[in-house]
Amino acid sequence: MNNWFKILSLLAFSFFTLGKAQKKLTIGEKQTVFSKVLNENREVWVHLPKTYDDTTINPAKYPVIYLLDGENNFEYYAGLTDFIARTPYADIPECIVVGIKNTERTRDLTPTKSQKKSPVNPAVTLFADSGGSENFVKFIQEELKPFISKNYRAQEYSILVGHSFGGLFAINVLLAHPEYFNAYVANDPSLWWDNEVTISRTKDYLEKNKKFPAAKFLYVSQADNEEKQKNWNSDMTQAIEKFKGIVEKNGTLNYKHSFFEGETHGTVSYPGNYEALKFIFKGFRTDIKQLAKNPGSLETEYKTFSGKMNSEFNPSESYLNVILKFMKSNDFKESETYFINLKNKLYPKVK
Amino acid sequence: MNNWFKILSLLAFSFFTLGKAQKKLTIGEKQTVFSKVLNENREVWVHLPKTYDDTTINPAKYPVIYLLDGENNFEYYAGLTDFIARTPYADIPECIVVGIKNTERTRDLTPTKSQKKSPVNPAVTLFADSGGSENFVKFIQEELKPFISKNYRAQEYSILVGHSFGGLFAINVLLAHPEYFNAYVANDPSLWWDNEVTISRTKDYLEKNKKFPAAKFLYVSQADNEEKQKNWNSDMTQAIEKFKGIVEKNGTLNYKHSFFEGETHGTVSYPGNYEALKFIFKGFRTDIKQLAKNPGSLETEYKTFSGKMNSEFNPSESYLNVILKFMKSNDFKESETYFINLKNKLYPKVK
Repeated sequence: MNNWFKILSLLAFSFFTLGKAQKKLTIGEKQTVFSKVLNENREVWVHLPKTYDDTTINPAKYPVIYLLDGENNFEYYAGLTDFIARTPYADIPECIVVGIKNTERTRDLTPTKSQKKSPVNPAVTLFADSGGSENFVKFIQEELKPFISKNYRAQEYSILVGHSFGGLFAINVLLAHPEYFNAYVANDPSLWWDNEVTISRTKDYLEKNKKFPAAKFLYVSQADNEEKQKNWNSDMTQAIEKFKGIVEKNGTLNYKHSFFEGETHGTVSYPGNYEALKFIFKGFRTDIKQLAKNPGSLETEYKTFSGKMNSEFNPSESYLNVILKFMKSNDFKESETYFINLKNKLYPKVK
Repeated sequence: MNNWFKILSLLAFSFFTLGKAQKKLTIGEKQTVFSKVLNENREVWVHLPKTYDDTTINPAKYPVIYLLDGENNFEYYAGLTDFIARTPYADIPECIVVGIKNTERTRDLTPTKSQKKSPVNPAVTLFADSGGSENFVKFIQEELKPFISKNYRAQEYSILVGHSFGGLFAINVLLAHPEYFNAYVANDPSLWWDNEVTISRTKDYLEKNKKFPAAKFLYVSQADNEEKQKNWNSDMTQAIEKFKGIVEKNGTLNYKHSFFEGETHGTVSYPGNYEALKFIFKGFRTDIKQLAKNPGSLETEYKTFSGKMNSEFNPSESYLNVILKFMKSNDFKESETYFINLKNKLYPKVK
């Protein structure tokens, strides 16, 4: 085979593969971050919102959602954020989703070293490698977050989302480092872990700090299957109930607990993650028809919302464009002028 | 520039682009089907389940879900099917999802020609181009379905999923061509369309056929916002209630209606599509721990399930592999032997 033939074959192959690749629907990109803390490479899956690469608007920043068990939850979760952030009736702002893929799941997500006999076969010991959650959150805070901020346009608002051991992790981060995230989501959290060590830590936190941090959000979902079937996991239900009792008695946290009838431990994250986003971003949605009559209400509503969130949120440029189009097509001239001015104020054109 | 340089530049560019493409997370592929019926190109987005390209198992066939308004629903929906089809606790079989992108949405999804004054500005006439749903379903049945069957391993089980006008479309297809799909999902369907023409058609269907087709499934979700706010869309709520009354009085259809408190017309598809899949595939889930004690129950359960579905379903080879791994790791030797035999029976090795 001569060189020309080799090169032409390679070219043909490249274009063939390229042609196929261009027809793929992508939902995110893989990034690898080397963690000095964990001494290993960590793969994260990053989803960017629809307007991220829109060149007709100024480059915008977006809240970031850190999603544990990325390999299981990333696809529907990324789709969910796009789905409920559609204008004009967006329930949440557009978000960047960072799915963290597991390497040693039990090691990373559990707060203490503990073991358990397998309920299926007591000869088998489970969770021998556990107790590394402080290390793992150090990786997220000191390595992953700076990586995301450096490579993407991240707004100063972040949410931590976990399920099962991941929910246990989220609650332990809230107790140990409440300043790390603005909101925490724990789907059917494994609060039974190590003789309910997290319940003890919750009590300790309250004894020391008197109350929970008021500006933070915590959402907990709970599946019903263990309760009904009284199977080996029912200590999970008991621990979640105990935690709920303590938090509700000290009502300073923005806290919501949802019990999902008919859901199992494995599925509850799908409805739980949706309810969590609706809870955290409650008050974000505005009514475009009302804005025709009362354009000033948009700024008032965003001000109230920012106060509730303890973080500044502004109407996005893309939403203002949708509002402008609506006012124009329905001939609401006064409101149109109002929003042209607002857009110029919030997103001045670079001269 | 000499030819060598040109070729080398091209190669370098190809590999650079390829390198980037390989790091993307894909959720599906775009296909374009030219429709003679509609005289236009139609873009469809196809999601293949996780095991589709698994070379360690025999090529399997999968149920196909035809999803209307593909551009809005495809990402979370495709992610959802993967999420709840995870073994060992799968609630549904793995599915192929075909998202159909809109061209002329109103034309394609409405059953009759009708118009309406804009509720925002009565000088504007809406829906001038409507009434093409018979053509559109002809495209799906006679052109799209054969395309999917030719290019993908499609099982003889299909579901039609729509929202709003798409829900109106799904119900009209059920009435006019119940044989086209095994199950129909209508999220907040626009049954108010054209003086409730679909309600009249439902009554006509019952008068002519005496009862609904018993082997078919219909799931209807309903959002609460219109009811509460009594806004311009509240004729939607009334029409859905009428339809519900008629179907429930003639209870031969596998029918479920879910009213979602706190959901809006724009968001109800997210929980609705999940509940719909749980409803349609109810009975699919099996308990791997029970199978250790009673391995024969797997075949019994699939037989019962297939009867309910009016279509044959078998345990997938990948699920049997998960079961075998479970039996082996927990030292359930008798059950392991049972499932080795079952696997050889259902998926004989080609010699």
